Amino acid sequence: MNIQTRHDMLTAQDEYPTRVPGEERLSERKDPVLWSEWSEDAPIGKDEAEHYAENGYLVRRDMFDADELKVLTETADMLREGGGDIPDNDLIREPDSDAVRTVFRLDEHSKAFRRLACDRRLAGVAEFLLGDEVYLHQSRLNYKPGFAGKEFYWHSDFETWHAEDGMPRMRAVSASVLLTPNGPHNGPLLLVPGSQDVFISCVGETPEDNHETSLKEQKVGVPQPGTIDRMAQKAGGIASAQGETGTVIFFDCNTLHGSNGNITPDPRANAFFVYNAMSNALTRPYAARGPRPDFLANRAAPQAIRTVSGKLTG
Amino acid sequence: MNIQTRHDMLTAQDEYPTRVPGEERLSERKDPVLWSEWSEDAPIGKDEAEHYAENGYLVRRDMFDADELKVLTETADMLREGGGDIPDNDLIREPDSDAVRTVFRLDEHSKAFRRLACDRRLAGVAEFLLGDEVYLHQSRLNYKPGFAGKEFYWHSDFETWHAEDGMPRMRAVSASVLLTPNGPHNGPLLLVPGSQDVFISCVGETPEDNHETSLKEQKVGVPQPGTIDRMAQKAGGIASAQGETGTVIFFDCNTLHGSNGNITPDPRANAFFVYNAMSNALTRPYAARGPRPDFLANRAAPQAIRTVSGKLTG
Repeated sequence: MNIQTRHDMLTAQDEYPTRVPGEERLSERKDPVLWSEWSEDAPIGKDEAEHYAENGYLVRRDMFDADELKVLTETADMLREGGGDIPDNDLIREPDSDAVRTVFRLDEHSKAFRRLACDRRLAGVAEFLLGDEVYLHQSRLNYKPGFAGKEFYWHSDFETWHAEDGMPRMRAVSASVLLTPNGPHNGPLLLVPGSQDVFISCVGETPEDNHETSLKEQKVGVPQPGTIDRMAQKAGGIASAQGETGTVIFFDCNTLHGSNGNITPDPRANAFFVYNAMSNALTRPYAARGPRPDFLANRAAPQAIRTVSGKLTG
Repeated sequence: MNIQTRHDMLTAQDEYPTRVPGEERLSERKDPVLWSEWSEDAPIGKDEAEHYAENGYLVRRDMFDADELKVLTETADMLREGGGDIPDNDLIREPDSDAVRTVFRLDEHSKAFRRLACDRRLAGVAEFLLGDEVYLHQSRLNYKPGFAGKEFYWHSDFETWHAEDGMPRMRAVSASVLLTPNGPHNGPLLLVPGSQDVFISCVGETPEDNHETSLKEQKVGVPQPGTIDRMAQKAGGIASAQGETGTVIFFDCNTLHGSNGNITPDPRANAFFVYNAMSNALTRPYAARGPRPDFLANRAAPQAIRTVSGKLTG
């Protein structure tokens, strides 16, 4: 095919152009937020489904019993202390010790967390929200120490997944399982309710190997402060997702979120799973030269999750 | 006098040695926190006095009526927009505009804020807490924009005022008057209750002109994380001082405090007054080569405040 045809094909397919020259542009979301009709069989309540559709996030508490929490926190501690047999490629360690800060591909490196990823309380909810079978686009264990926790500025994950990973539509959801208490002052997840309904085409070209720096501080693909301010005002203010260990936070792939730094002594840890609809598998990146590595975006062999019910065990 | 005598004199007088070589040392506070006996005439309630003595801080709400708040916030806006006739020495401006971020010597540059500084609701409370006539050691108007508010790490003000300004004893109190709402996520003041009772001798020598960088990020005179952690655990956790516009936060000169950054759209502004007891006037710095400039530490002509009652007017 000639260049023009190829260009037409690519641009015609792109419902969410971003990393554009000129000025930031806002457009309406072209996909549902909640992809299922609620019924009695749904894994969440009707109020919860409505809250998610309206606000772009949902906090579910007391999802696990004490034994299950013990399995999860002890496994997380073990991974943090050594990393076990996990290859260095999938780890980020603290600069001044062997302690592990992040374990990527968490579901491949830990039986307990693989089981968690498939649990009906996570994957079952994701299937319902996305109205499809789901697979893991990304999974990781995060540990953020006290005193020196860094802020993370407002962004839409979908903007990056679309631009740099080639995720076509807004049909993905993140689930964060808190492994420590997360209060108001140790950097809880902040969200702009309703922001999932607006796609912000961000200005600027994607630098090569952007992920090498963007995981620490995102510079391309972030909205203008004035835009965030207007959206927060429309929402009546920002929201925060706080909770005890075991709280699960679901948020839509396009919900604007971020977190403040943390000077308190209290660390934060969570297990983080991104579920994508099977029908929404990755194509070529929409606004980057090459795709990001597999530990950030599972493009090699997405497999539909078989959800599992019942108690988590070690 | 010979060197030994002079050394003896200086060290004998220093109840709170800091900026020391070797290891951080903790010692008991040698001064009262609350310097007055509470009586019916006190400007605060008995519970409030006890709370302050025990925790090292006190939050007082609804101190001003709507007219008074209007005077204060409008004056603050005016100062922020132009700075008026204030000499550049007493201003910090935003890097990318003429907007003013800080006005030092606030009481000298604004009639309304001078009147506020002398108000019985501030100076009268300070006199009671310190059991003495008081003067202004430092005063300033702070404006911290949203989105980009920087964190400020844990520190004791007294440690700096003693080391770098020559404040002999712990007989000073800060009063912060909120000029915007201050909620959990736009960087409220965080405090370690009870920390006022312990003096932490910090490690490290004071660099020359330390204040030129320490106002942005304090590197000398900050406690070790483990120490803060232990003190926070002893206190049953950190406290935060939040409130609506017009809330007044008093905190002892030695109470450990700090604040997280602020990625939210909501700015913070406050008027900040440090009251020192007349009997506690500055001497030579205890651990710095020369004193800090006058806008940070009023050493030229401390004058006892005559407290004023009644409504603030423009």
